Amino acid sequence: MTRELYSLRSTRIAVAALCLWILTIASAFGQTAAPLPSWSDGPAKLAIVEFVRATTDKASPKFVPPEQRIATFDQDGTLWVEHPMYTQVMYCLDQVPALVKAKPELKGVEPFKTVLSGDHKAIAALPLPELEKILAATLSGMTVSEFNDQVTKWIAVAKHPRYKRLYTELVYQPMLEVLEYLRANGFKTYIVTGGGQDFVRTYSERVYGIPPEQVIGSAGGTKYGYDKNGRPTLTKEPKLLLNDNDAGKAEGIHLVIGRRPYLAFGNSTGDQQMLEYTQAGDGARLMLLVLHDDATREYAYGPANGLPPTKVGTFTEALMDEAKKKGWTVVSMKNDWRRIFPFDK
Amino acid sequence: MTRELYSLRSTRIAVAALCLWILTIASAFGQTAAPLPSWSDGPAKLAIVEFVRATTDKASPKFVPPEQRIATFDQDGTLWVEHPMYTQVMYCLDQVPALVKAKPELKGVEPFKTVLSGDHKAIAALPLPELEKILAATLSGMTVSEFNDQVTKWIAVAKHPRYKRLYTELVYQPMLEVLEYLRANGFKTYIVTGGGQDFVRTYSERVYGIPPEQVIGSAGGTKYGYDKNGRPTLTKEPKLLLNDNDAGKAEGIHLVIGRRPYLAFGNSTGDQQMLEYTQAGDGARLMLLVLHDDATREYAYGPANGLPPTKVGTFTEALMDEAKKKGWTVVSMKNDWRRIFPFDK
Repeated sequence: MTRELYSLRSTRIAVAALCLWILTIASAFGQTAAPLPSWSDGPAKLAIVEFVRATTDKASPKFVPPEQRIATFDQDGTLWVEHPMYTQVMYCLDQVPALVKAKPELKGVEPFKTVLSGDHKAIAALPLPELEKILAATLSGMTVSEFNDQVTKWIAVAKHPRYKRLYTELVYQPMLEVLEYLRANGFKTYIVTGGGQDFVRTYSERVYGIPPEQVIGSAGGTKYGYDKNGRPTLTKEPKLLLNDNDAGKAEGIHLVIGRRPYLAFGNSTGDQQMLEYTQAGDGARLMLLVLHDDATREYAYGPANGLPPTKVGTFTEALMDEAKKKGWTVVSMKNDWRRIFPFDK
Repeated sequence: MTRELYSLRSTRIAVAALCLWILTIASAFGQTAAPLPSWSDGPAKLAIVEFVRATTDKASPKFVPPEQRIATFDQDGTLWVEHPMYTQVMYCLDQVPALVKAKPELKGVEPFKTVLSGDHKAIAALPLPELEKILAATLSGMTVSEFNDQVTKWIAVAKHPRYKRLYTELVYQPMLEVLEYLRANGFKTYIVTGGGQDFVRTYSERVYGIPPEQVIGSAGGTKYGYDKNGRPTLTKEPKLLLNDNDAGKAEGIHLVIGRRPYLAFGNSTGDQQMLEYTQAGDGARLMLLVLHDDATREYAYGPANGLPPTKVGTFTEALMDEAKKKGWTVVSMKNDWRRIFPFDK
């Protein structure tokens, strides 16, 4: 081999090896350029970017070791649309015909009778204790694997009454970006939802990139047993183990994670204790609330917007006062989000 | 620059870049050479190595995607010494004097009176319901952060009566190697213990490399509230949410993880349902039980060794029959482990 050839060859090897190294490093550290493209430049976006910088820069006094980087997100109204009714309640209502077919004695009994009538106004007017009867009847009694199959089937076809799209399409693009941005910076992202843990786990990985073990939600007990072939089963029981709302969110975080989050994102009074609990830790903590103030692209509702309270995600005036007093970041859908849904242009 | 120098320089760059690349790749994929050095060559070691190969080799029909790789481990008697009594029970007994000081009315009341007497035989003879009174009294009533501090202090100094070493030194070296080997191959390792979740979480990361959020254990409820400065607190309640023994292990795995493990490791009847539940999944599943048959280096106990049942980790003859029938791997401490503790030569 001539010296020229040798030199050329080793230069090529150097370049190839450097490229490989750069590619490996780049894929290991994730993309960091221009985060949160669907967020308008403003105090909310700035607060998130600055929080990530402060907690991940080793030179920062607020640096947080990677294993402690926990971020928790409410789901309904925070990650996806909760109006006019929680998606899981829609699911439960849709299960009533099959339930009554299996248990005909329920046909003439309220609240099942009203649901079967198909009278939307009467269904929407059902009081909470009546709704809870429907939830208990449609969320327990089957094995966890049967339940998983039922939800998976339903969520693949059921559509939102206004948008005529799958519920899983109605996730907020800016929030998907926050989840991705935090994960690229070493945060473990958790859902902490008042909704059913088993329900959300059926789609959380596919829709949010959040694995089932990072979904905390309201959870009933299960009972271990065996099917007719002697195969172990877990059957969903009507007994509530964790009511993952209000104080239950802080309790659920302790039960499942055992660490205090550094960032918590919610949108209603049901998230207040999760935000308080997050803020009570030392160092950098970021607490955020989504305000639904965009009647055109999504919805505007609740007392914080000067509108009457609704059955879903109550953002009260008292919560708004609390947010101001405690320095929580209020995210205006109208002003802070340039784009709402992944399908928006 | 002369051609020779240029050639030398680019060769050096090539070598440096290649080294960096190799280092990056190597650290990303973990060490794979000569796994499980403290295990004797034999069917148990072979079963583990073959399981890891089958589940991680993309060409294998039993390949498991990384996000589904879940492995669950009992703690007492599986990861560390459980004889003559569970470490957590030792902790609770040691808290009794402070408890009685705070609540003098308990001084003359059983079982606290017996514990205060210091009569080891009488303490060891306390029946389970009496022990449970001590557990309830010493594991609830304080905030989770006070409890965390108390356990952290105790475990840093309390010593095992036979080995005169910290309990956290009495972990099994072969099991630390299994945990590390599985993690290097993309498995998420969980502790699933009948012991207290909050207790084990105080040291699990340091001792086993298992973060608090991957510890499932028996768990009491907590109550959210505020201290006198208005700071949020979680107070440990005597109410049991999850009894993480027997069927409770499968139920706890569903509650916290929501996926079925591919590998489960236990040592007693309390782990039987966890192993059954693991085996009931499709594809490659590995179920293992530690048999305590080494009276010289550790302990030999239980009916599976032809010895009487003890208060800890019962490995019954029925469980041994079950293991044989179902093809579960029984790990003999005496024969399969060349070394027991990290401090052994």
